[in-house]
Amino acid sequence: MNPTNPVPLSDAAPLDFASVFAGLGPHVSALDACLREQVSSFEIEIREMADYCIDTSGKRIRPALVFLSGWQDEEVRPELVRVAAVIELVHLATLVHDDIMDEASIRRGRESAGKAYGSEAAVLLGDALFAHALHLAAQFPTTLVCSAVAESTRKVCAGEIIQTLRRGTTAVSREDYFRVIDLKTAELFRVSCHLGSFLGGHPPEFVRAATTFGRQLGIAYQIFDDLADFFGEEAKIGKTLGTDLGSGKLTLPLMELAELLTDSERDDVMAEITGRSVPDTAKRLQQMQDLGVFSKVNEALERELIQAEEALQPFGGAAATPRLLSLVQVLRAQVAGLSGPL
Amino acid sequence: MNPTNPVPLSDAAPLDFASVFAGLGPHVSALDACLREQVSSFEIEIREMADYCIDTSGKRIRPALVFLSGWQDEEVRPELVRVAAVIELVHLATLVHDDIMDEASIRRGRESAGKAYGSEAAVLLGDALFAHALHLAAQFPTTLVCSAVAESTRKVCAGEIIQTLRRGTTAVSREDYFRVIDLKTAELFRVSCHLGSFLGGHPPEFVRAATTFGRQLGIAYQIFDDLADFFGEEAKIGKTLGTDLGSGKLTLPLMELAELLTDSERDDVMAEITGRSVPDTAKRLQQMQDLGVFSKVNEALERELIQAEEALQPFGGAAATPRLLSLVQVLRAQVAGLSGPL
Repeated sequence: MNPTNPVPLSDAAPLDFASVFAGLGPHVSALDACLREQVSSFEIEIREMADYCIDTSGKRIRPALVFLSGWQDEEVRPELVRVAAVIELVHLATLVHDDIMDEASIRRGRESAGKAYGSEAAVLLGDALFAHALHLAAQFPTTLVCSAVAESTRKVCAGEIIQTLRRGTTAVSREDYFRVIDLKTAELFRVSCHLGSFLGGHPPEFVRAATTFGRQLGIAYQIFDDLADFFGEEAKIGKTLGTDLGSGKLTLPLMELAELLTDSERDDVMAEITGRSVPDTAKRLQQMQDLGVFSKVNEALERELIQAEEALQPFGGAAATPRLLSLVQVLRAQVAGLSGPL
Repeated sequence: MNPTNPVPLSDAAPLDFASVFAGLGPHVSALDACLREQVSSFEIEIREMADYCIDTSGKRIRPALVFLSGWQDEEVRPELVRVAAVIELVHLATLVHDDIMDEASIRRGRESAGKAYGSEAAVLLGDALFAHALHLAAQFPTTLVCSAVAESTRKVCAGEIIQTLRRGTTAVSREDYFRVIDLKTAELFRVSCHLGSFLGGHPPEFVRAATTFGRQLGIAYQIFDDLADFFGEEAKIGKTLGTDLGSGKLTLPLMELAELLTDSERDDVMAEITGRSVPDTAKRLQQMQDLGVFSKVNEALERELIQAEEALQPFGGAAATPRLLSLVQVLRAQVAGLSGPL
């Protein structure tokens, strides 16, 4: 089988990650049941708050990665359900804290936890969710899951800290950018594929390949997310365009733009990033369109996706392989759906 | 041996918890070395920040509880050092988050992490410290430590959340008060004694007794802390008196005061707690002195300490017992050192 021409999950190839996950019917039900069950482990006074945060409306890319990388047959394996729940809880905990820091009042169409309960309680609620995720991870027979999830969480936090401290600064290299997205996004994708393939009973060589796949897909996903901040449709991504420029985050599209501009124009962009002047988002979006930033960024994204595909190339015969590769196609479809190439 | 007349740790009985810990010479050095070693596990960009938070200047009551409840002889056991480090890291992580929520700019005589790095980075730094604590906990051969520490952390957070949500409200019963301090403070004391005695190789009956001891001591310690907020010396406790009243926290001294006041005076105190009127701290302190609130609260505290002593009564022969009991005497000395009885 040619891994660049993967078998879709269903006849109608899913176009987004939410539909990939929805396509995993019995796995979805088992994960939802497992997540809902966790609410009863929280102290009675905070159960309603925990329930509010344990939202099952997201894309749930990480649980999908767990199930698909552990795929052997249709069977819903309880250990995959549990590890998917652990990773999703960690992710939900980071969202609660992210929303407090970004002072975001809306998350997935309703009030964020920070808005609903106050940021003081929400900091602690994020902590409690994370603590419970690790408690659930400790229910595996060995410390492997606990260890891997705890380490990944530290890396995610480290990536977010580095990004936070760099806000408003322009001395950020491409290497710095890739380091941060590797930590803040690719790490949980990586560990999802690692633990999914391992607990799914795949041989060590496949586990290594799936782990690399997860990491590369995660890097590509974050590049896509940063691209969508400038080339998405506002209604679809649920926020105004150019927020990264507004918050002083020097992401890849801005780096590419800076390289294509004249010295004087570049200085203007840098002044906007450092907050010395008010960002002229409309102008930057127009310049990005005019100078072909979209295709430059897409090239970088494609390099990551090709590496993801190559990692799985020797394992075309594994049931998990075409399923994982279909995610690459979903991401390509998502990128193609941005307004950039128009 | 009579457990109410314990053998002191040294000839000159230590008067505070910091000196108890300092008296554990080789254990102190081993713990400090272990904590400092952890810094290298953090991503290079956040090492300095992790190092800043991994402060070794505190009282370290929880590590002392681990070492003393695991005591068999003078030997420094690596597993006790590691679990003491895990619990101290969790405690330090909660302090980082507490300081953000309280907007405290000073912690142990220097800038808090939130003040030094900004509250955004500090929320994530607390998360990273906690994640690393769990990663260290996963280095034990079984999931026992991970599971216990993760569950205790969730309880600590739950206690803090409940307390936060109750600020400024007066419908708080004594039962509510004890529930919160059991979760927010006694839980880490309890798990310190539980894991210390278990990993120290004590028999199951002693582990159970030490666990009860830790919990009761923790409840007593929090009552002492709440008492010190009204009866401490400002220079010694490092903050102004009556902050709990100012922040709308209905603690045991305020509950006792409310019960001893006339209906109309009680309404005044309640109005101060809800923020309907400005707290008259000087007046409340005077009323507490006049009405004997100190001895009332001390009675409640003593009931907990006696239960702590009783738990260890059947184990007078264990090397750990007199050492743990000396902590009860330290706490009594601390209570006696408050300005209340003068």
